[in-house]
Amino acid sequence: MAQAEDNNLSEDEKSSSEETMWMNKKLLSREKSMAKSAEVEHPNKAFGWAATDTSGLLSPFNFSRRTTGEKDVTFKVLYCGICHSDLHMVKNEWGMSTYPLIPGHEIVGVVTEVGSGVQKFKVGDKVGVGCMVGACHSCDNCTNHLENYCPKMILTYGAKYYDGTTTYGGYSDTMVSDEHFVVRIPDNLPLDAGAPLLCAGITVYSPLRFYGLDKPGMHVGVVGLGGLGHVAVKFAKAMGVKVTVVSTSPNKKKEALEHLGADSFLVSKDQDQMQAAQGTLDGIIDTVSAQHPLMPLLGLLKTQGKLIMVGAPVKPLELPVFPLLMGRKLVGGSGIGGMNETQEMIDFAAKHNITSDIEVIPIDYVNTAMERLVKADVRYRFVIDIGNTLKSSS
Amino acid sequence: MAQAEDNNLSEDEKSSSEETMWMNKKLLSREKSMAKSAEVEHPNKAFGWAATDTSGLLSPFNFSRRTTGEKDVTFKVLYCGICHSDLHMVKNEWGMSTYPLIPGHEIVGVVTEVGSGVQKFKVGDKVGVGCMVGACHSCDNCTNHLENYCPKMILTYGAKYYDGTTTYGGYSDTMVSDEHFVVRIPDNLPLDAGAPLLCAGITVYSPLRFYGLDKPGMHVGVVGLGGLGHVAVKFAKAMGVKVTVVSTSPNKKKEALEHLGADSFLVSKDQDQMQAAQGTLDGIIDTVSAQHPLMPLLGLLKTQGKLIMVGAPVKPLELPVFPLLMGRKLVGGSGIGGMNETQEMIDFAAKHNITSDIEVIPIDYVNTAMERLVKADVRYRFVIDIGNTLKSSS
Repeated sequence: MAQAEDNNLSEDEKSSSEETMWMNKKLLSREKSMAKSAEVEHPNKAFGWAATDTSGLLSPFNFSRRTTGEKDVTFKVLYCGICHSDLHMVKNEWGMSTYPLIPGHEIVGVVTEVGSGVQKFKVGDKVGVGCMVGACHSCDNCTNHLENYCPKMILTYGAKYYDGTTTYGGYSDTMVSDEHFVVRIPDNLPLDAGAPLLCAGITVYSPLRFYGLDKPGMHVGVVGLGGLGHVAVKFAKAMGVKVTVVSTSPNKKKEALEHLGADSFLVSKDQDQMQAAQGTLDGIIDTVSAQHPLMPLLGLLKTQGKLIMVGAPVKPLELPVFPLLMGRKLVGGSGIGGMNETQEMIDFAAKHNITSDIEVIPIDYVNTAMERLVKADVRYRFVIDIGNTLKSSS
Repeated sequence: MAQAEDNNLSEDEKSSSEETMWMNKKLLSREKSMAKSAEVEHPNKAFGWAATDTSGLLSPFNFSRRTTGEKDVTFKVLYCGICHSDLHMVKNEWGMSTYPLIPGHEIVGVVTEVGSGVQKFKVGDKVGVGCMVGACHSCDNCTNHLENYCPKMILTYGAKYYDGTTTYGGYSDTMVSDEHFVVRIPDNLPLDAGAPLLCAGITVYSPLRFYGLDKPGMHVGVVGLGGLGHVAVKFAKAMGVKVTVVSTSPNKKKEALEHLGADSFLVSKDQDQMQAAQGTLDGIIDTVSAQHPLMPLLGLLKTQGKLIMVGAPVKPLELPVFPLLMGRKLVGGSGIGGMNETQEMIDFAAKHNITSDIEVIPIDYVNTAMERLVKADVRYRFVIDIGNTLKSSS
């Protein structure tokens, strides 16, 4: 769900890619049988692009969707954002992927059918689905509108749905979801540039709210200026918060200040700048998923300041404890948000004209886009024009 | 320097001790002049036990205290607890010690003189001084009653006071402090067993309150059953909280459950026990200052659970980020508490009959006590009987 910022391909990752080319050959026959079994699961034909092994390469893929259930909303997918976690998942970098895997959890489109029990949506509505499509609805988290933390939360793709079938994401022509996990897209929010808010947007909006970093006049840092970071700047500014961008890249300063409206910019490797800014921030949204030191960031915080992690470094980070004790500081985490809050975020974005900065691409550019994403070569989010470019070859 | 060396010294400590023997000779003349200068700094003669080098050995020491200023309270010291940080400081393990150093920041006694402007205390009152004796009184922290986080906070010993002189702690016959940093000891709180509350007590009480782990029915873990941990159990129980003690030592179970009143006990190295307790705790007070893994502790927390560090490991700990994201968990810190809250804690302790479990010792046992403290060979706090055993030889 969270994505990398300022991340470059390491030697380990390179060798891992080479290794998967050999693995591809072994997996070919398995793929075919799996694709076939997927084909017969549901009555409605569907088409998308899937990863079939850890090479990370996507290719056209015929599969099926369930018929519209009583509480289901079926919609034609128009746009789907590419989240950095899609990259992790197609390559099985988190060790939880199954193939074939259709990524995509920043999905928007237009409703084509609703079940008899659906109350919130009708045919023709503009809707979206984010990172999850199911939860238990009875645990403490669910009853507190935190389906995102439900132990039985079902991810939008690569997970097992209630009926035992595999969930497939938004790099596909249609989507079916229980209405509980569908959000309404307000008319004035562009579908393409709004799509990434369903993951990137809620990922930064939720911690700003939950950790109380949304009060006008507060001063918040945003670490990493990528898919998450650039949206965090926009949300925080709209909340009336003073924003300082912290980045390893000095060449992002102009962009941060002039285009995104940040109030100030710190180069994290410039010790003089960092020293001068000690003790100035009420909180930090840290979007970096690469290994990085927390000590300099903790130093930027005021007493009782909060360093909130929304990026997901694979290996543990080093946590110096003294700074926490000396200033009652904390390091917290946050992962997406509940459905009520996701709708609230989308409505807030529409009201304040907040969208993601995007590069719209056709579906057959997706593998190139993935390669560029590894190099952080995008400002700031790829969005696939599913509606106009995804055509079934069958 | 009359004490024998500890036979259990590590190789590092041995070489360090040998080094200090050489340093001692160099320092002898300096000590004398410092002692002399200390002697003439203030008009009132005082007597205590001081460390004069990094050997960690304490010895009798003549020094002086200022006369009672307008806002000062002077009191005869009756008891002083031995905090583990005293051990770190006498050995300069945190790199901030200056010698001669008189430790002690769990100090209680009876008022002998008050300044003309003192409003809260009178001669004969039972009082205490904890970890700090000064602050700026004008910064955001001070105005929010968080003098403990004031950047100009003055430690009770080993620091520079406003007048430029060195502060000396409670291993001494008298104490002088601005009344702002003096707390009243209620009549029903034993002075000896109450003394450790001034550091250990407030260190665990403050985070229980601040992080909202004080609500009846909550379930809180206490990691480490030592000077801090055993008091944390008592405070949490008095707040109506269910308490689980987490310890590496299975042999502390009986003590925790039967004597301290904890509700349950987990052996942190027993993976089955730890697994069975996953997701059960609202928060954890982690009192361990040795290196230890945080992952198992984060696993014990419910969604939005809080792991609060009050011990101070010297080296950074490993922080796995995924568990923070997946459950909106946090790792926070806390250091002692403000003066208002310290008085509140003492009053709460008196009301609920909370004291530290102590072993009262004479002053000339202090070096042996320090050796035993290194081995955690005390249940749970040494308290020096200053009033009856500290006698000036001059």
